[in-house]
Amino acid sequence: MQLLSNEMSAYLKNSSWIRKMFEAGIELRKEFGADNVYDFSLGNPDLPPPAKVQATLHKIADGILDPFSLGYMPNGGYVEFRETLAGKLSKEQGVSIPMSNVIATCGAAGGLNVFFRTVLEKGDEVIVPCPYFMEYNFYTSNFGGKLVPVMSKDFTFELDVEAIKAAITPKCRALILNSPNNPTGQIYSRQEISELAKVMLEKSQEYGRPIYLIADEPYRFLNYDNMDIPSLFELYPYSVVIGSYSKSLSLAGERIGYIAVNPAVEDVAPLMGGLIMSNRILGFVNAPALAQKILIDCIEEEVDMNVYLKRRNAMAEVLDRAGIEYTMPKGAFYFFPKAPGGDEGKFMDALVRNHVLAVPGVGFGCPGYFRMTFCVSEDVIYRSSDAVCKAAAECRN
Amino acid sequence: MQLLSNEMSAYLKNSSWIRKMFEAGIELRKEFGADNVYDFSLGNPDLPPPAKVQATLHKIADGILDPFSLGYMPNGGYVEFRETLAGKLSKEQGVSIPMSNVIATCGAAGGLNVFFRTVLEKGDEVIVPCPYFMEYNFYTSNFGGKLVPVMSKDFTFELDVEAIKAAITPKCRALILNSPNNPTGQIYSRQEISELAKVMLEKSQEYGRPIYLIADEPYRFLNYDNMDIPSLFELYPYSVVIGSYSKSLSLAGERIGYIAVNPAVEDVAPLMGGLIMSNRILGFVNAPALAQKILIDCIEEEVDMNVYLKRRNAMAEVLDRAGIEYTMPKGAFYFFPKAPGGDEGKFMDALVRNHVLAVPGVGFGCPGYFRMTFCVSEDVIYRSSDAVCKAAAECRN
Repeated sequence: MQLLSNEMSAYLKNSSWIRKMFEAGIELRKEFGADNVYDFSLGNPDLPPPAKVQATLHKIADGILDPFSLGYMPNGGYVEFRETLAGKLSKEQGVSIPMSNVIATCGAAGGLNVFFRTVLEKGDEVIVPCPYFMEYNFYTSNFGGKLVPVMSKDFTFELDVEAIKAAITPKCRALILNSPNNPTGQIYSRQEISELAKVMLEKSQEYGRPIYLIADEPYRFLNYDNMDIPSLFELYPYSVVIGSYSKSLSLAGERIGYIAVNPAVEDVAPLMGGLIMSNRILGFVNAPALAQKILIDCIEEEVDMNVYLKRRNAMAEVLDRAGIEYTMPKGAFYFFPKAPGGDEGKFMDALVRNHVLAVPGVGFGCPGYFRMTFCVSEDVIYRSSDAVCKAAAECRN
Repeated sequence: MQLLSNEMSAYLKNSSWIRKMFEAGIELRKEFGADNVYDFSLGNPDLPPPAKVQATLHKIADGILDPFSLGYMPNGGYVEFRETLAGKLSKEQGVSIPMSNVIATCGAAGGLNVFFRTVLEKGDEVIVPCPYFMEYNFYTSNFGGKLVPVMSKDFTFELDVEAIKAAITPKCRALILNSPNNPTGQIYSRQEISELAKVMLEKSQEYGRPIYLIADEPYRFLNYDNMDIPSLFELYPYSVVIGSYSKSLSLAGERIGYIAVNPAVEDVAPLMGGLIMSNRILGFVNAPALAQKILIDCIEEEVDMNVYLKRRNAMAEVLDRAGIEYTMPKGAFYFFPKAPGGDEGKFMDALVRNHVLAVPGVGFGCPGYFRMTFCVSEDVIYRSSDAVCKAAAECRN
C-alpha cells in the first residue's frame, strides 16, 4: 500500500552525500576506533554555550512555576525578545529596525520556510549562487517554488552578477545570499552586493513585483579577517535578514532564529502579518519559549571565535602540506578546496580509505571541489595531516 | 508593489473570530478594568507547570556547558526521549510501540504539518467531523490538500458515520479525530470509532490506498468522567497519534509534541523516514532540545485535573442558571452550547455588551452554537453568571 506521497518517495530515494559520509563514519569508527577517524563532514558546533546561558537558564527555572511562564504567546514571539532582537540587528545592519519588523522563528531553516510560504506563488523561482546549501531546494519546493542555482566565479566563488542577471525571469521572486557562505567560507564584498542590488532593483521595476534579497547569515560572527560584512538593508530596499543563534551560542538543537524585514519596505504591515500567520499555520505557532527567554539575556554572548580561527589556520596548514588548492575562507567554518586529480568522487574514496570524512562538491551543486568543516579540535585536524597527504598523493597518480 | 502571495493576501483578509474577540477584549478591559471582563474565548492553559519541571530545568542547566548539550541531534529527536515517549504511548494505546515508530515534533500543530507534507498528493482530501478546529484548513492547504468537514449529529456531536462514508472519495487520504474534542468537549465512543474504522478499511481497500486515521489528542488527560478513550491503534491499522504536552504540562509555548505510527502498519520504515525528512525540510529540523530533555524526566507529570473538573461544574451551573442548553463536555476545557435565540452573532454581541467573551460556532464551521473555555478561575466563572443570564435574556426577547 502506498504510504507516502510520490514526491516524498522520490526524495527518500536520493539519499544525501552527508548521510553517506555519516554512515561511512560509523563503519570506520567501529573498525578502527573513534580516535583514528578524522571527521570533517558535519557542521555541528562542538563548543559549549557561553557560561551566561547556564546562569540564565537557572534564572528561568526559578520563575517557571508562574502561570503562563511557558504558555502560548503572540505568534511573532515575546515582545521583550523582539525588542532585544531589533536592538541587536539595528546595530548589525546599521539602520534602525523597529520591533514590528522582526519576528522570532524556529531557527533560520524555520524562518526560510515561513518566508517562502508567505511570498511564493506556485512556480516562482528563487536564485541562489552556486555552490550552495542543498536544503534550499526543499525550502522552496515545499511551497511550489523552484530553486535556480547560478554558478559563481571559479575557485574564488565571487558572485557572477552577469550570470545572475541573465537568470532572472518574471517568475523570479527572491535571491538567497548566504554570507559568510556554506560551503565556501567566502564573504561577499560591498561592491559585489551593490552591483547585484542594482540589477535586482531594475528587474523588480521591469517586472512590477519585488524580487526579495534574503540574507541568510548564521555565520556573521565568524569573520576571521575583520572583513566588512555589508548590511543588505543599506544597499537594497526589498531585503530581509533570516538568521539564527545556533552557531554563535551553540544552541542549534533548541531552534531559535528570526526574520527581520528592511524598514525601507513601504506598507510593510501586511507582509509582517503574513509572516506571523505563516509561522502559526505551518505549525511552529511560535519559536520555542525557553530559547527566546535565554536570548533576552544572552543575545550579545558568543562562543570564542579564536578557537575557530586557530582551527582554520591549522586546516590551511594541513591542506598546504598536501598540496591541495583552496581559496582561504574568510568566515564560517568550512574550506571548499579543489579535489586533487579533479575527480572528487575518487578523492572522497581515497579520503575514506585513509579514515578521513568530507563532503563532495556535488553535494553543493559544484563538482570538482569538496567541503571540509573545522568544527573539530585542532588536535584532530593536525593528526589528520598524513592521511590527507596520502589521499591527495593517491589521486594525483 | 505586491509583497505577499495571492493566497496569503486572501487569508489575511479573513480575520478570525478568535482574533476579533481578542481585540474586543482589549477594548473592554481598557474601558471597564480587567476584573470586570469575563474572557472565555482563549484556550491558553493558566495552570503552572508541575513542580518537577522546575527541578528538571535546574538539572539541565547544571549540565548545559557540556559540548553539544544543545547541539544538533537526529531529526527525529533524542533517542532517550523517543524511548520515553514510546513507553508512555504504549501504555496509553494498549499496544507495544517501538521507539522507531515515534518521532518528536514541534507541538501537535508541527506534527500535523509534518504528517501532511509526507503523505498528501496535491488535491488529496482530509475529512474532519464538524464542528472542528479551523487551523486544520491551513495544515492541509499548506501542501495542496483540501479539508472536507462532515457535520456530526446535532447537539450531541456524535460521529455521523453514514455521512462520513458518503464523503469519502478516491482522493480521501486521511480523517482527523480530535478526542476529547475542541470545541465540543466530547469523547468519541469505542462503538462510534469501530463503525468508522470498518468504513475506512473498506474504502482503503476499494481505492487501493490507505486512508489514515489521525488521532489528534492533546486533551487525552482531561477526561472528567473516567470515560473509555479508545486506542485507535487497536481499532484501525492505518492510524497515527499526533499529540503534545502543551496542555498536560502547561508548556504550550515551548512546542513539544509527537507523531506515533501504529505498529500494525507493515513496512513502516519509509513512512518513518519520510516523516523525519519532512520534520527536517520544513525547517523544524528537530523538536526543541530543552523541551525534550524536560519531558524525559517529566512525561508522567500532569497539571491537576481536578481544578478543571471544578471549573467545568461551575460553568455548567452558570449556563443552567441562564437557561442555555448544552451537551455536558466529557473532556478538554470547552463547552459548546446552543446560542439562546438561535442567532449566535446576535448572542455574541449581547455577551460583549455584558463584558463576556466567547467564540461563535461559525468559527468552528457550526453556526447556531458558541464555544466557552474554562481556562479561567472558578471565581471568574461564577462572577460572570449575572452577565451571561442577562445576555441570554436579551436574545430570547
